[in-house]
Amino acid sequence: MDHVRLSKTGDSVVILDQSLLPLEEKYIELTTLEEMVEAIKRLQVRGAPAIGIFAGYALAALSKQQCRPKAISSCCGASGTSDEGFIQILKDQGSILKGARPTAVNLSWAVDRVVNAVRVEMFRARQEDPLRLNANAGARRLAEAAAREAEKIHEEDREMCRAIAGYGLEEIQRVCREQSHEGPIGILTHCNAGPLATSEYGTALGPVILGNEQGVEFRVFADETRPLLQGARLTTYELQKAGVDVTLICDNMAATVMKKGLVQAVFVGCDRVAANGDTANKIGTSAAAILAKHYGIPFYVLGPSSSIDMECATGDDIPIEERDPDEIRSKYYEKPMAPEGVRCFNPSFDVTDAEMITGIITEKGIFRYPYSESLTAFSK
Amino acid sequence: MDHVRLSKTGDSVVILDQSLLPLEEKYIELTTLEEMVEAIKRLQVRGAPAIGIFAGYALAALSKQQCRPKAISSCCGASGTSDEGFIQILKDQGSILKGARPTAVNLSWAVDRVVNAVRVEMFRARQEDPLRLNANAGARRLAEAAAREAEKIHEEDREMCRAIAGYGLEEIQRVCREQSHEGPIGILTHCNAGPLATSEYGTALGPVILGNEQGVEFRVFADETRPLLQGARLTTYELQKAGVDVTLICDNMAATVMKKGLVQAVFVGCDRVAANGDTANKIGTSAAAILAKHYGIPFYVLGPSSSIDMECATGDDIPIEERDPDEIRSKYYEKPMAPEGVRCFNPSFDVTDAEMITGIITEKGIFRYPYSESLTAFSK
Repeated sequence: MDHVRLSKTGDSVVILDQSLLPLEEKYIELTTLEEMVEAIKRLQVRGAPAIGIFAGYALAALSKQQCRPKAISSCCGASGTSDEGFIQILKDQGSILKGARPTAVNLSWAVDRVVNAVRVEMFRARQEDPLRLNANAGARRLAEAAAREAEKIHEEDREMCRAIAGYGLEEIQRVCREQSHEGPIGILTHCNAGPLATSEYGTALGPVILGNEQGVEFRVFADETRPLLQGARLTTYELQKAGVDVTLICDNMAATVMKKGLVQAVFVGCDRVAANGDTANKIGTSAAAILAKHYGIPFYVLGPSSSIDMECATGDDIPIEERDPDEIRSKYYEKPMAPEGVRCFNPSFDVTDAEMITGIITEKGIFRYPYSESLTAFSK
Repeated sequence: MDHVRLSKTGDSVVILDQSLLPLEEKYIELTTLEEMVEAIKRLQVRGAPAIGIFAGYALAALSKQQCRPKAISSCCGASGTSDEGFIQILKDQGSILKGARPTAVNLSWAVDRVVNAVRVEMFRARQEDPLRLNANAGARRLAEAAAREAEKIHEEDREMCRAIAGYGLEEIQRVCREQSHEGPIGILTHCNAGPLATSEYGTALGPVILGNEQGVEFRVFADETRPLLQGARLTTYELQKAGVDVTLICDNMAATVMKKGLVQAVFVGCDRVAANGDTANKIGTSAAAILAKHYGIPFYVLGPSSSIDMECATGDDIPIEERDPDEIRSKYYEKPMAPEGVRCFNPSFDVTDAEMITGIITEKGIFRYPYSESLTAFSK
């Protein structure tokens, strides 16, 4: 069952509340824009690709709501701008959704796709009936276009995950052959970029889950990923479900695991890749990359090509969200673990410098350093 | 008030229970060897020097208990080996204490000092009365010798901390002058090597606390230090008490703080330094060192020269304790944060390679790379 989907009535979104995992598997229904924004902020839905899928369905649901009697009457009025009005409302809702997580390029990409699809539908309606130049497609038809686009984003994500998994598996098997590595393939991963962050195989965990299905033995070390513990709560949960050998460690133990030779590669997801290859991902990713470089371990970023933002020259241009200090001081704990009022610095993401990254594995293939060349060649 | 001390009656040890900080300041009294071993294992007393001080007082208290009527009668018997018997019991107790934390060289060093002091007292008694070659010093006299040695270990620690603080402050001010650094001096620290881990100034926090007293402005970033959160619970508590500007971060945020130029040096304590300079300290220390090297930030180990173990050739010879997986999965949390039964790897310490360490600051001065030369020259 998909963990992000449109409800049967099409006017709300149903998600697995990831903030309750791994102890509770609870699906919740989100109807209002406020609930949808909160779901992103509270990490009830998370992972860049999943947020993209979610945003698509969110706009589809909100579009469907515009078809309700009251909305129809105002929107199919005599003004002739009612399709435009529909789209304006959708655009405004999309802007608010985008603001819930400014770092995630997939979010704004998905919002723009749905809005554009609706706009295209409006023009198509006009072209179909050239004599009535001001004709409206009507809310129902526009909402259907939004829903179709959202489904398409989801289906493309499934295909994208399968392709990334395939490229990643091939790459790690090649690396292991070159190093004459025998026995289970050790992978370190940070945060969660598995099925829960995307659809089906996930991105960073894709090669592992696909390999496991094909009988390739993996052993994954999952950073717990403070402060929100996505590694402890989600990655171990997903890998256990998939039957993959997984060991949970604290973030600060990664160096020890690497030094012991237990890890053949690091696989992480990404929130945004700049044109030069600098990559924003969950806080702590850049440390894992620097440690991997120190120990001569290849470090891979796995994600959809939609995470690559060619408008963003370098990592310096990626906005980094700072979150509530109580996530460090008290969240999840029985009682606060720091003195009252102590100052905290809680950046949600960091930027891994391009030269620390061995390869960026996307559904289009593997990009390699220098990324300003390989990514530019791709984008042309 | 000292946070580790002998009780007024001298037959028990009183400690501030550090496992309850920062929310509760509670002193507890430990009487039996079992309670003392548990206090080390449960981190109610922690920090290598403090554990050394604690071990001294523990043996002093246990010695005093050997003076109780029943013990006196058995120990001042006719056999002539009663002093030897006293020492044998003390040695056995010392071995059990040492086993509570095999990584901490101060623990076994303090145990050996007290046992030796008692043995010296026995020989002194024999020499004072050369005609009675089998004379016993008696339990009371031996116990007093144990208590004196324990007090001496504590007083030496206070002097040691003052000396380390002085050398460290001088060094960081020199570094800042060389880099023409202006404004508050940023320090990253990992785990807790402040007054609570030692006495008075502490080791790693000594230069900061001393400098703060002298009007030198510091800004400390404290790693929370998973899984037991000594940084969040203790370092922030101590620095707040001392009036030092402190910011709490998750361990995986250190790279970001370094990249932003907020840190002029890293100061950490040590559990054991090998003859080549490899240093065992709280898990995560080696990662901080590798990150500091990457960002060109000097990395200092601060600790008593008693932490230097010339018998230990390299870090590979330092035993690393593995602790209970539930420290990662569930300790401190309201409910478990990982699926039931998920495997964890929980090494308590790691070894920082000598070449990552800019200087080892002790009460005898600062040792610099290559340590096999500087430390060998010192030990001769």
